[in-house]
Amino acid sequence: MKLKNDTLIRALLRQPTPYTPIWLMRQAGRYLPEYNQTRTRAGSFLALCKNPDLATEVTLQPLARYPLDAAIVFSDILTIPDAMGLGLYFADGEGPKFERPLRAEWEIRDLTAPDPTTHLRYVLDTVSQVRRALAGSVPLIGFSGSPFTLACYMVEGQASSDFAAVKSMLYQRPDLLHHILAVNTNAVIAYLNAQIEAGAQAVMIFDTWGGMLSHAAFREFSLAYTARVIAGLKHEHEGVRVPSIVFTKGGGGWLERIAAIGCDAVGLDWMVDIGEARTRIGARVALQGNLDPAVLLSTPEVIRRECGVILERYGRNNGHVFNLGHGISQHTPPENVATLIETVRGLSGDYH
Amino acid sequence: MKLKNDTLIRALLRQPTPYTPIWLMRQAGRYLPEYNQTRTRAGSFLALCKNPDLATEVTLQPLARYPLDAAIVFSDILTIPDAMGLGLYFADGEGPKFERPLRAEWEIRDLTAPDPTTHLRYVLDTVSQVRRALAGSVPLIGFSGSPFTLACYMVEGQASSDFAAVKSMLYQRPDLLHHILAVNTNAVIAYLNAQIEAGAQAVMIFDTWGGMLSHAAFREFSLAYTARVIAGLKHEHEGVRVPSIVFTKGGGGWLERIAAIGCDAVGLDWMVDIGEARTRIGARVALQGNLDPAVLLSTPEVIRRECGVILERYGRNNGHVFNLGHGISQHTPPENVATLIETVRGLSGDYH
Repeated sequence: MKLKNDTLIRALLRQPTPYTPIWLMRQAGRYLPEYNQTRTRAGSFLALCKNPDLATEVTLQPLARYPLDAAIVFSDILTIPDAMGLGLYFADGEGPKFERPLRAEWEIRDLTAPDPTTHLRYVLDTVSQVRRALAGSVPLIGFSGSPFTLACYMVEGQASSDFAAVKSMLYQRPDLLHHILAVNTNAVIAYLNAQIEAGAQAVMIFDTWGGMLSHAAFREFSLAYTARVIAGLKHEHEGVRVPSIVFTKGGGGWLERIAAIGCDAVGLDWMVDIGEARTRIGARVALQGNLDPAVLLSTPEVIRRECGVILERYGRNNGHVFNLGHGISQHTPPENVATLIETVRGLSGDYH
Repeated sequence: MKLKNDTLIRALLRQPTPYTPIWLMRQAGRYLPEYNQTRTRAGSFLALCKNPDLATEVTLQPLARYPLDAAIVFSDILTIPDAMGLGLYFADGEGPKFERPLRAEWEIRDLTAPDPTTHLRYVLDTVSQVRRALAGSVPLIGFSGSPFTLACYMVEGQASSDFAAVKSMLYQRPDLLHHILAVNTNAVIAYLNAQIEAGAQAVMIFDTWGGMLSHAAFREFSLAYTARVIAGLKHEHEGVRVPSIVFTKGGGGWLERIAAIGCDAVGLDWMVDIGEARTRIGARVALQGNLDPAVLLSTPEVIRRECGVILERYGRNNGHVFNLGHGISQHTPPENVATLIETVRGLSGDYH
């Protein structure tokens, strides 16, 4: 079935579009009252992720409210290590944690890439269901954490302010970290390709923690493996191109290198000027971003002004997907999201 | 009294030196057993900061162990808002907090810059005592938080993962944030100049949180005020130049702009390649940094290798002060610091 609205796909492939497409990282999330209701019904965040009916429901919620140009499958970046047996859980009011983080060398040597068609079946089922429900209205984005970002959680057991455990391993036992990263790379490739076969029409790799590495370590331990993922992806499914997006939070210093690994688009946080980014990178890839999520905590006037600046800085060029520079805040008033989307739709035509 | 070892001052002024000077951010800290003993005697971190005898003692401890090229006065970046009456405290195992963060508009309008010679006397007394105790062996560095970083804590009441309160103010009530920043700027100028008069021979401004701002907001709300601080500083005391260092963590994308505000040196975190930084900035300022503090959690071989890379990347140029890219980790084995300093001393002569 041909997409009715293929603006996102065209923009990711740097083709002409009538306006700048927009979707939001974490667009199905806690700022939406209907999301919170479904989550309560599910019992927990993780139960929601693992229930394809409910995950499909929340995936579609923001699209019922807003004229977004894409859906993104509702899931978590840590499904892979959970499927590896590390025991993902969410303590109340805290981020994700693992019951069994990687500690001993034998645990690391025993690690294997999970078969997505069994251990991650629930994600693939959600992808299929969402794809059917969308009925070609807008494309569906699949996603995964990057091999390095997964490794951070697998070694630390949770997010950290200094990532001392994973960095100690990086500097003292790089062989062990490389082993984890190689397994993760195979897992991410299999997982994203399975999502593509299940119906994902674009894929995004979230490298949430690559930005805390030194410039040299980033290349060796994060970017090299993301590049292997990109090389292993199906770039076409049923004769249709499946674009890939790579987002390294805090990676503004390395945009040229990220853009060179073969992905179709690079995500930008808000610390980067999107106009400067485009000049640095050239037209090799599309750019996605880069509004500070905190702008959505303000007023319609400020939202309009800040959107206008980003559109103007990107200018009359193909290949821009409007988005935030990070996930939407749970404190965002839903009406501000409406203002954002109206503004981008209203202003961006002038640049196309 | 002439300095016996003026390597740091000469490097900050981009003059020739026989080797690359080194000091470490937070060099008087919890990785040292003798520090922990003194802190226990003081009763708390804050009591230690506020007791000039004990603060002098811990300032000198790392210099008794290691041949460092500078002392930095033992204090906290949040002494100014504490002196403004916000009530700084440290909960066990947590970062700094304020009892009375700025909430109401009248509280913000009432804010005034404290007179450092009364409310921050204890810091100036520590500076004088340390300076006397050093007896010209190495220079003493004074410091302050940047106006914006102080404002972050003053508005949030503590560190935050997304700084939603200060960013909401930035986007919704920029007038209020500008008012806080103007008061902070006057406070920082008076405070640093008082430290210079009390004996500080170089000063450093820590912009710990500027890196989480958008590129445009960074210029307007952080860099513009740091520039005003630099312009207001005494650049000479008793006929001797007092160099200034500005460090924005996560500011790697903005180094050229930071280097242009009139400071003598720019601090680098470890996400930046110091060779690329030097190429971008040119010889306008000295550079300080940029070893990942996590390297000190590893082995002598790795420490030597990583130091060698930084020295080689900086190359045969004046104006490099070796340092970490952030404060030293409390988990650092003290013998690794000895290895680091020996290595920099041993290898850096070849580049001078």
